[in-house]
Amino acid sequence: MKQFDDEAFRKAGYEMIDWIADYHKNVESYPVLSKAQPGNILSKLPTKAPEMPESFSEIMKDVDDIIMPGITHWQSPNFFAFFPSNNSGPSVLGEMLSAGLGVQGMLWLTSPACTELEIKVLDWLVDLLDLPQMYKSTGAGGGVIQDTASSASLCALLAARHQVSEGNAPKTGMPDNFAAYTSDQAHSSMAKAANIAGMGTERLRMISTDENFAMQSEALEKAILEDKASGGQPFFVAATIGTTSTLANDPLPEIAEICKKHHCWLHVDAAMSGTAAICEEYRKIHKGLENADSYTFNPHKWMLTNFDCNAFYLKDRKMLTHTMSILPEYLRNAATEKSEVVDYRDWQVPLGRRFRALKLWFVLRMYGAEHIREMVRKHVGLAEDLAERIASHPKLVLAAPLSLNLVCFRHTDGNEKTQQIMEEINASGNAYLSHTKLNEHYVIRVSVGQAKTEKEHIDRLWGIIEDRC
Amino acid sequence: MKQFDDEAFRKAGYEMIDWIADYHKNVESYPVLSKAQPGNILSKLPTKAPEMPESFSEIMKDVDDIIMPGITHWQSPNFFAFFPSNNSGPSVLGEMLSAGLGVQGMLWLTSPACTELEIKVLDWLVDLLDLPQMYKSTGAGGGVIQDTASSASLCALLAARHQVSEGNAPKTGMPDNFAAYTSDQAHSSMAKAANIAGMGTERLRMISTDENFAMQSEALEKAILEDKASGGQPFFVAATIGTTSTLANDPLPEIAEICKKHHCWLHVDAAMSGTAAICEEYRKIHKGLENADSYTFNPHKWMLTNFDCNAFYLKDRKMLTHTMSILPEYLRNAATEKSEVVDYRDWQVPLGRRFRALKLWFVLRMYGAEHIREMVRKHVGLAEDLAERIASHPKLVLAAPLSLNLVCFRHTDGNEKTQQIMEEINASGNAYLSHTKLNEHYVIRVSVGQAKTEKEHIDRLWGIIEDRC
Repeated sequence: MKQFDDEAFRKAGYEMIDWIADYHKNVESYPVLSKAQPGNILSKLPTKAPEMPESFSEIMKDVDDIIMPGITHWQSPNFFAFFPSNNSGPSVLGEMLSAGLGVQGMLWLTSPACTELEIKVLDWLVDLLDLPQMYKSTGAGGGVIQDTASSASLCALLAARHQVSEGNAPKTGMPDNFAAYTSDQAHSSMAKAANIAGMGTERLRMISTDENFAMQSEALEKAILEDKASGGQPFFVAATIGTTSTLANDPLPEIAEICKKHHCWLHVDAAMSGTAAICEEYRKIHKGLENADSYTFNPHKWMLTNFDCNAFYLKDRKMLTHTMSILPEYLRNAATEKSEVVDYRDWQVPLGRRFRALKLWFVLRMYGAEHIREMVRKHVGLAEDLAERIASHPKLVLAAPLSLNLVCFRHTDGNEKTQQIMEEINASGNAYLSHTKLNEHYVIRVSVGQAKTEKEHIDRLWGIIEDRC
Repeated sequence: MKQFDDEAFRKAGYEMIDWIADYHKNVESYPVLSKAQPGNILSKLPTKAPEMPESFSEIMKDVDDIIMPGITHWQSPNFFAFFPSNNSGPSVLGEMLSAGLGVQGMLWLTSPACTELEIKVLDWLVDLLDLPQMYKSTGAGGGVIQDTASSASLCALLAARHQVSEGNAPKTGMPDNFAAYTSDQAHSSMAKAANIAGMGTERLRMISTDENFAMQSEALEKAILEDKASGGQPFFVAATIGTTSTLANDPLPEIAEICKKHHCWLHVDAAMSGTAAICEEYRKIHKGLENADSYTFNPHKWMLTNFDCNAFYLKDRKMLTHTMSILPEYLRNAATEKSEVVDYRDWQVPLGRRFRALKLWFVLRMYGAEHIREMVRKHVGLAEDLAERIASHPKLVLAAPLSLNLVCFRHTDGNEKTQQIMEEINASGNAYLSHTKLNEHYVIRVSVGQAKTEKEHIDRLWGIIEDRC
């Protein structure tokens, strides 16, 4: 296209950079939760794509007028819903570079740097989080970037299926007596993985949790024994470090012991909480991890790296690569045949892959470990502040033990009142909170994890909450 | 982090834009296939992440010195390997905006514009490619952006499993008599999907192909009848429009007839070729598509939209959303409960999702349909040119019928000579070609699809080939 050459790109690129910098500067001026109603944006978009080119400025006008009213501002310091998905300048720069290079990292050969930088930054994270050394690429293990923890957990289940079926599952299918285990507080992606992998959710046992919402290890062993007694083959246990509802931690050492005894693969999902281990004082969350076959956490949640960037580790990478490997003639090449290299296509569901290691590399280098620790400590401190205020308010109670950066609370007048508080705050646009249910209580979750969230934002949030009590 | 605030981002962002614009301008100055040896990049990267921040310019120096020698230049006009994965200025701008906004589109609620723009641009593509109207969101069907055709095909298989199992599969697992069908020329992702979904590759029948590498429909029906006779339940047929090796087209009308008769889901994978249907004269490739239950093609291959951007369509979206849907308390919200909206988390394996519709929107608007058609016609014309020269050379033969933008050829002196030609060209850095095998012949594939590939590049490629004959 003559109209939009490299020089036109340069000019539009500067404008886009300005737009993004201004957006981040002014992000607090928008209502955090979009006020759009269903169909609002759809109705403003033309029914046909244009035949002839439109200008960059026309499109940016529509971004401002049509798209922005439909944006929920995940990067706002007043976003406290779900889990954070924080980004940062360095991360956006890395993503830009990845898009500009436009390489495909399916094979080592198709861009050696894409594979080797990924190996290295994932090894870096092992040391930064003080994860077991067995997850490093220098031994039998290794790490890979997946899009999400959902995909990582699916891959863990497939690797476990491979190991326990002695390599038969890829050919003969999911054995119909295999059974898997997770807690009733585990992320919904565990059930989704059991469904996708052809096991069926009926054979995923949802183990009950204790008063702190952590898996009861006795109940786990009981379920395993029951399955064995009725001809089942227990093969996979997914433990959670930092459950979605309350950031509860399953008791890894006890669970690992049970897995060892019953020859089950142990997968650990620390999607949100994992990042905390960059600070020495929070590393206790990973106690027992040295006995886990696989582990995952999301730099795209609380490590300033824009979505998608999940880190997934295996103790024995072969279990995954052997189950996923398919080598048609058109992908054959000398480096692959000689097994000298890692081909990440065999570590994931898709074949193709972007150069996602760049953004993580930019973040780790431009922040330095020390500044990421500073951010984590800041968020945990802010959550502690808020929890104290809630605990000392006569009409509010903490609904779960404070864990890292997540505060769960409810109003003593009951579910309706609690829900009303949350919905009023969300509708105001001043902050965005989300909820869960714990023992039939409607509970508000305040997840403190945006890069720009400071004491002033927590003070303001507390003011808004207090006003409605 | 104080050191890298919005203003520092602005400055570094301009520099990154300059870097990308310069890269695209000078992309031909690099060897197309990286000359890196295994471990070259790894050995140049430090073993630990830095404790303290490093500057943007230090990192960009390493990009130039360490990363660039390990890049295979997919955006080079001399890249003819595999399939294209072309990007463009408008697409990079859209990806930047997506990274800058940093929104999560898992639910409609979590950014309504992310969902509604995706619905709209996928509806646009239905008209642009003249696909059956049943794939539009306005009826029972609909489209979604997946990362790759591999994931789309997996989703198609899961939707089919759901339909034929009458909704039982998510709970009870993959029925052990289900059988699926594809051709021996289909993409390896079909076998990967059968493996992942717990069916096992043994129950994926690889139907033989004819002299033009298209599925033999009689062989398909024979295999279905054999399975039925032995208690099997045929449920899924994956046809290919544009096979990976030769861009062969399976006979959709006949296959659709067989699927109808035997109650099988018909999925059509047009990952690379689909884009061609933007030109009226190539729409015949989709003849029979009105009887397909699902269809997929990749705007990230031949439609100037940087990876990842796969378009996946279903005739009845409920088959996918019902099989994937999981609604834990923490994702409940009024819009979802009232079924007023699309929640794309139920259309895919992962939960989270980026705002990928933006880049497609930027591409479609900044090029306009007419300029995309112009590019497609240019590439097909260049492939025709090259094929004619090959056909009239005494030592070369076309190894498959010319199809769209892919030329397959071999040297008459045999496999060794053909392979040697390709390897010499790739090692020279002047062009990058890849290969396949057809009837035991080693065959070079020339896939013409990079945005900047012009007549001069084909002329030069032909010169290089001729020199080695």
